[in-house]
Amino acid sequence: MSTEETKELYQEYRVEEYLPTEEPFYVAAADEIKIFEAAYQQRIPVLLKGPTGCGKTRFLEYMAHRLGQSLITVKTTPKGGDQHPLPLVTIACHEDLTGTDLVGRYLLKGGETAWIDGPLARAAKVGAICYLDEIVEARKDTTVIIHPLTDHRRILPVEKKGEVIRAHDNFLLVLSYNPGYQSALKDLKQSTRQRFIAIEFDYLPRDLEKKVIAHEGATSEEIASDLAVLGEKMRHLKEYGLQEGASTRLLIYTAKLIESGISPRRACQVAVVWALSDDPEVQQSLEETVSAIFK
Amino acid sequence: MSTEETKELYQEYRVEEYLPTEEPFYVAAADEIKIFEAAYQQRIPVLLKGPTGCGKTRFLEYMAHRLGQSLITVKTTPKGGDQHPLPLVTIACHEDLTGTDLVGRYLLKGGETAWIDGPLARAAKVGAICYLDEIVEARKDTTVIIHPLTDHRRILPVEKKGEVIRAHDNFLLVLSYNPGYQSALKDLKQSTRQRFIAIEFDYLPRDLEKKVIAHEGATSEEIASDLAVLGEKMRHLKEYGLQEGASTRLLIYTAKLIESGISPRRACQVAVVWALSDDPEVQQSLEETVSAIFK
Amino acid sequence: MSTEETKELYQEYRVEEYLPTEEPFYVAAADEIKIFEAAYQQRIPVLLKGPTGCGKTRFLEYMAHRLGQSLITVKTTPKGGDQHPLPLVTIACHEDLTGTDLVGRYLLKGGETAWIDGPLARAAKVGAICYLDEIVEARKDTTVIIHPLTDHRRILPVEKKGEVIRAHDNFLLVLSYNPGYQSALKDLKQSTRQRFIAIEFDYLPRDLEKKVIAHEGATSEEIASDLAVLGEKMRHLKEYGLQEGASTRLLIYTAKLIESGISPRRACQVAVVWALSDDPEVQQSLEETVSAIFK
Amino acid sequence: MSTEETKELYQEYRVEEYLPTEEPFYVAAADEIKIFEAAYQQRIPVLLKGPTGCGKTRFLEYMAHRLGQSLITVKTTPKGGDQHPLPLVTIACHEDLTGTDLVGRYLLKGGETAWIDGPLARAAKVGAICYLDEIVEARKDTTVIIHPLTDHRRILPVEKKGEVIRAHDNFLLVLSYNPGYQSALKDLKQSTRQRFIAIEFDYLPRDLEKKVIAHEGATSEEIASDLAVLGEKMRHLKEYGLQEGASTRLLIYTAKLIESGISPRRACQVAVVWALSDDPEVQQSLEETVSAIFK
Amino acid sequence: MSTEETKELYQEYRVEEYLPTEEPFYVAAADEIKIFEAAYQQRIPVLLKGPTGCGKTRFLEYMAHRLGQSLITVKTTPKGGDQHPLPLVTIACHEDLTGTDLVGRYLLKGGETAWIDGPLARAAKVGAICYLDEIVEARKDTTVIIHPLTDHRRILPVEKKGEVIRAHDNFLLVLSYNPGYQSALKDLKQSTRQRFIAIEFDYLPRDLEKKVIAHEGATSEEIASDLAVLGEKMRHLKEYGLQEGASTRLLIYTAKLIESGISPRRACQVAVVWALSDDPEVQQSLEETVSAIFK
Amino acid sequence: MSTEETKELYQEYRVEEYLPTEEPFYVAAADEIKIFEAAYQQRIPVLLKGPTGCGKTRFLEYMAHRLGQSLITVKTTPKGGDQHPLPLVTIACHEDLTGTDLVGRYLLKGGETAWIDGPLARAAKVGAICYLDEIVEARKDTTVIIHPLTDHRRILPVEKKGEVIRAHDNFLLVLSYNPGYQSALKDLKQSTRQRFIAIEFDYLPRDLEKKVIAHEGATSEEIASDLAVLGEKMRHLKEYGLQEGASTRLLIYTAKLIESGISPRRACQVAVVWALSDDPEVQQSLEETVSAIFK
Repeated sequence: MSTEETKELYQEYRVEEYLPTEEPFYVAAADEIKIFEAAYQQRIPVLLKGPTGCGKTRFLEYMAHRLGQSLITVKTTPKGGDQHPLPLVTIACHEDLTGTDLVGRYLLKGGETAWIDGPLARAAKVGAICYLDEIVEARKDTTVIIHPLTDHRRILPVEKKGEVIRAHDNFLLVLSYNPGYQSALKDLKQSTRQRFIAIEFDYLPRDLEKKVIAHEGATSEEIASDLAVLGEKMRHLKEYGLQEGASTRLLIYTAKLIESGISPRRACQVAVVWALSDDPEVQQSLEETVSAIFK
Repeated sequence: MSTEETKELYQEYRVEEYLPTEEPFYVAAADEIKIFEAAYQQRIPVLLKGPTGCGKTRFLEYMAHRLGQSLITVKTTPKGGDQHPLPLVTIACHEDLTGTDLVGRYLLKGGETAWIDGPLARAAKVGAICYLDEIVEARKDTTVIIHPLTDHRRILPVEKKGEVIRAHDNFLLVLSYNPGYQSALKDLKQSTRQRFIAIEFDYLPRDLEKKVIAHEGATSEEIASDLAVLGEKMRHLKEYGLQEGASTRLLIYTAKLIESGISPRRACQVAVVWALSDDPEVQQSLEETVSAIFK
Repeated sequence: MSTEETKELYQEYRVEEYLPTEEPFYVAAADEIKIFEAAYQQRIPVLLKGPTGCGKTRFLEYMAHRLGQSLITVKTTPKGGDQHPLPLVTIACHEDLTGTDLVGRYLLKGGETAWIDGPLARAAKVGAICYLDEIVEARKDTTVIIHPLTDHRRILPVEKKGEVIRAHDNFLLVLSYNPGYQSALKDLKQSTRQRFIAIEFDYLPRDLEKKVIAHEGATSEEIASDLAVLGEKMRHLKEYGLQEGASTRLLIYTAKLIESGISPRRACQVAVVWALSDDPEVQQSLEETVSAIFK
Repeated sequence: MSTEETKELYQEYRVEEYLPTEEPFYVAAADEIKIFEAAYQQRIPVLLKGPTGCGKTRFLEYMAHRLGQSLITVKTTPKGGDQHPLPLVTIACHEDLTGTDLVGRYLLKGGETAWIDGPLARAAKVGAICYLDEIVEARKDTTVIIHPLTDHRRILPVEKKGEVIRAHDNFLLVLSYNPGYQSALKDLKQSTRQRFIAIEFDYLPRDLEKKVIAHEGATSEEIASDLAVLGEKMRHLKEYGLQEGASTRLLIYTAKLIESGISPRRACQVAVVWALSDDPEVQQSLEETVSAIFK
Repeated sequence: MSTEETKELYQEYRVEEYLPTEEPFYVAAADEIKIFEAAYQQRIPVLLKGPTGCGKTRFLEYMAHRLGQSLITVKTTPKGGDQHPLPLVTIACHEDLTGTDLVGRYLLKGGETAWIDGPLARAAKVGAICYLDEIVEARKDTTVIIHPLTDHRRILPVEKKGEVIRAHDNFLLVLSYNPGYQSALKDLKQSTRQRFIAIEFDYLPRDLEKKVIAHEGATSEEIASDLAVLGEKMRHLKEYGLQEGASTRLLIYTAKLIESGISPRRACQVAVVWALSDDPEVQQSLEETVSAIFK
Repeated sequence: MSTEETKELYQEYRVEEYLPTEEPFYVAAADEIKIFEAAYQQRIPVLLKGPTGCGKTRFLEYMAHRLGQSLITVKTTPKGGDQHPLPLVTIACHEDLTGTDLVGRYLLKGGETAWIDGPLARAAKVGAICYLDEIVEARKDTTVIIHPLTDHRRILPVEKKGEVIRAHDNFLLVLSYNPGYQSALKDLKQSTRQRFIAIEFDYLPRDLEKKVIAHEGATSEEIASDLAVLGEKMRHLKEYGLQEGASTRLLIYTAKLIESGISPRRACQVAVVWALSDDPEVQQSLEETVSAIFK
């Protein structure tokens, strides 16, 4: 497909809003970039596992940008690729997301029913990365709909139209979920799981997290360093009644509040302690951790 | 954005009904005003926690009014701000509130389907503070819809239209909930929580509450003082079978009934005792507290 | 608002069907009339509590009639009142009553969608008393919808139209429920409760109930007296397996059957004993109580 | 209302299909006819209680016919009555019967929405007896809808139209249910129950049942007598695992099969034994009872 | 009704697709044909009970064909019969079958709503046998809808149209269910049961089943005989963990596979053993039974 | 039916998208091809049982291709066959798949309602193999709808149109499910099961699986061999907490990642270990198995 044709395709499906506007800031923890590139090269669907706020979404934004740039050099399927940025269509899954929401629906227009493609159908047509975030929240019909897009068929049956969409060569399906939430009730079925390779994520080690906090929070090296220490400590408190550790995002919020003139301990209180827990005892343990760092 | 453009935007989206008409009466308990201003400056979403009737809604009305007045002096994002009052769109959450209710829906008009923006979409477009009251009552799909509005993307995907709304620079999302109600079933997911800093509220201390009762109940200093004492005492009775303490609102009601000629003890009975509980034993304890103050 | 304008308003919203046609017969048990007048004067929402058939609905019909007559003398809010009868809009709550049923909905008319106000919206617009009977039966979304009508805002957001209705000065919201039915599952949330003062009702004392039976059942003093004694006794049998005592209504039915020529004991059997219970043992205890009075 | 007007009213609402075509055959067990007449005279709603197939529906068909004939002599409400047959609108209640089914709905006709009255609305307008059969099967919203039709208001609010129907003077509401089925889950609420007087029914005594079987089954006195004995015996077997006794209807079926040439024992087997139970042991006890009578 | 009129009626309601095309092959086990004829003569509704695949559906197809042929000699109701084949309308019941599916619905056609009769309404109008297969699977509203079609009224109220269909003289309602499946949850209510006579079915005895296998499986006497023995044995294995015995249909499948060249033991494995159970131990017992017969 | 007619039929129903484009690669484990051919010859419906990813779908694609090629030589039903490829319509079952989704629905077009055939209706009309994948996930109404397509009637009643589709001679229904998932709740009813012969599948033996991995993963004999050993070992680990063994698909993914330059152990980690389990202990056992093979 030529550059011209791709432009037209992107325009027809109004893809511009799904294109990354600038290069996302991403600090790699291991070889996840290489693994993802290999999977994309073979068009093997990918499952991202990890806790809240550890950077899964950011990683994918980075990969979409990177793969889009290098698509011309990446060995693509015989029908060829293109050097345009790769769109990323993100769908937050939840209990009420229907198959219709993903695939599309008919709407009345001037007495006629017009078909509106859902985000999954658009992603398949334009060759985007389609990212189903927190897939275990989705209803069963949603997870079943994606099956034929993940094997050699690479199709999306649109049963309401009696049609079948063949996915664009660049299309790839990516799921994410948080194994910490997983319960017997909301488990991913093996028949879905075994259609994906899996990359596990965790919070960044202290040194790398400091870099992220300093960059995103626009704060000093020193405060970033203290906050990274705080994050690390809080994740070890998990067994003391804390449901989940502090995400990097909360540490960045804290940095921003400090930069806006709030004192470090008060900033930690509202952006970390109160944000993480409602339990007075847990809050007290957290406060003590804060006091030990920000004296 | 110029004053003229803002006026037009407000007119187009019929914002006037969301603008505060007069300055709300608000008595600050701590530095919550400063914290909120810092958060708004950085456009960090805020979660307000606290018991029924302790003033969360009133606080937000006050902040919307205050920030609207000072918006020109507040350091805003590069694209600039404006000096118009800041609209406040309040949405009371409940089990049956759908994502469609928030984002918008198609309606038939003359055989055509016309799109009607939901309150969240309007708030994002005009740059309002959007306040989701009692968020834990909402269905999961509602809480998921707000995610992309709370991170660096600041977007609201409108899946039924295949569009994406980019939030206005002034837009901020605020949630509230009452940790006392929280159960395992109706907890806010960590992946939602960790997108907000949190400010905790409690009932006002006696002296400040007296001021509020006197002002809002249009009553004498003495009666206001007695009622503030009553409120404080009742909140300590909580462990004796009372589900929740008396809100400031009920104390104001009592003051108003007294001003309308009802005797203080009868006013306390209908506006506090019977309003709080159906249990004869609990009612008796409350009556005794009333008798000790209004002899 | 002038008399002429009020007439037009009532005509536009077809209020006449909600106006009391004649003065309801009401026998006061205590100072409930005075309390309600004070609450109405201050526009404080009211919650009526009490068992089935003790007269809550009748009381409200009486108050609507009385307040309508005296509205001109009652001190109203600054914008003034009027001397027309006060409409009473009654809504029986149940599990399937949706917010849409209360607020309004779109209907197709000639290819266009026309908006039809729900009873709550009409009550707010014309300045009626809106009575939500057996509120604990309602779904959560219903109870949340009324919140902004019960505080200083006095508004009803109509989310499907993107509009906000400001309540008429005469508007007041009244709820009722039966605390005997209340279970953990169907409790009124504190955040709803604490928006209302509460008036508790019980069955009338024997002497007053006799007057009501004689008047409504068009029967002799003697029979009315016997039936009032029967009612009082049956309410004490409650602990012997009877779910709820006999309402005044059933005693009036009995009087009416007697007036139609049915023997008193047979009338008591069908209108009280069989009406109250299906359990043969409970029925026998009740029959014995009947025999002791109607020998 | 004149005869001419009544005819027109009946024609407008297509009532003819609800009019009894011939006098139903009914054998009274006690003074139920007199009680019902007194209740109708006073327009007191009636609840019929009793087991399956004991004749509740037949009784009501008979009363509708009888009251229709004598309506001119019955003392009616001030606005007067008429001498036309009284229509009987029967509604079988079930879990999926909605309030809309009862009251009415909008339908599209030529691009317009036309309103279609539900059976309850039609009954209220034309002055029929409206019979809600097996009311405990109904959803809560159905039982609540009938409340204002059963007290002094005698109205049916049609919320979807924003209207109120005032019931015709001849209208009366009758419910039925089978106390044998009643469970905690499907009980009639006291606030509904206490709006009705109650008449209890049971199977006919042997001599009266014989007359019914002979008449309806078109069989000989002897066979009718044997079947009545069989019915009586089977109702005593109830404690031996039989859920409910044999209804008169099954005994009439048996008579009819015998008249069609099936041997009495085989007829009893298919029309009574197999019809009543699937349990081989229960079936054997029943067969023995049959053999004892039909040797 | 004349032959000509019947033809027109059948044509109007497109009945031809419900007419049996050729005489079904049916082997009677007892006097079920005579019983059914007597019931039909008296228009008494019939309930067919028995395990999966024992021939209930086939029996009814046979009866529809036979009664259609002899309708002229059968004594019919006064309004007369006709000698045309009797249509058989079969409805497979399931949890999601609504009353609307049975009775009919409105559909938009050219801006108008047109009414489409459901299968039950068509059957009532044209005088078909209407067969509700596996009735216990149906929702409560479905079973209630059929009540007025099964007593002296013989009507089908069409509440959405405000109409009542009077059943054609030839109409009869037949239900079936499998008592083996019956649970407390999915039992037929006595108020429904006692409207039907019941015919119990079981698997055919070995000699008769052999004849059916040979005819339908187009196989030799010898193989048919062996398979009938196998079927009989397997039904005795039921207590050893087999949920239900092998139906005649599976034995016919086996015969057909053998005729297509599969070895008898392999045919028994795929068409009986694997078809009946997933449990390895049960499968082994079944295999041993197979090996004992097909050595 | 002539070649020309078949082409037209396929064109009318847009069948081309359901036709296999190239011969699928299939390695038979036993005589499943012969059994399926015999079943198809007799048009006996088939049930495929087996674990996730063992090749059921691939087998059916192969059979559709093969039977399409040889249809001219296969003995078909009297009305004849054709030599065109046989379409395969695959429907992934899930809890929200309605009967309407399978059979078809009305859609508004220019004010008219137009009927759109569902995939099952299209398959029945054009004579495809219709494959309902993971049938136990389907709702009850779906499984009941297929019954009349699986016996001598071979019809699909379209109740919403009041029509009946007679299946094309080439049509066959095939189901699949995974007995490992089966629970009491989601079992296939015997009345459905006994309409199918069943073919059981398992993972391929090591030698055959090696061939498939080498072919599909485009990898060396040696790596394919190692991976086949790994797969075999992992399936024996099942009792140590692994819900299900590794599918052949995951082994092929591993091969592909290795071919893309990822080291074998890292490839096994993301494509097998992390893909199969979230449990750290299970993961460690799996890692040890990997290390034992890829040293």
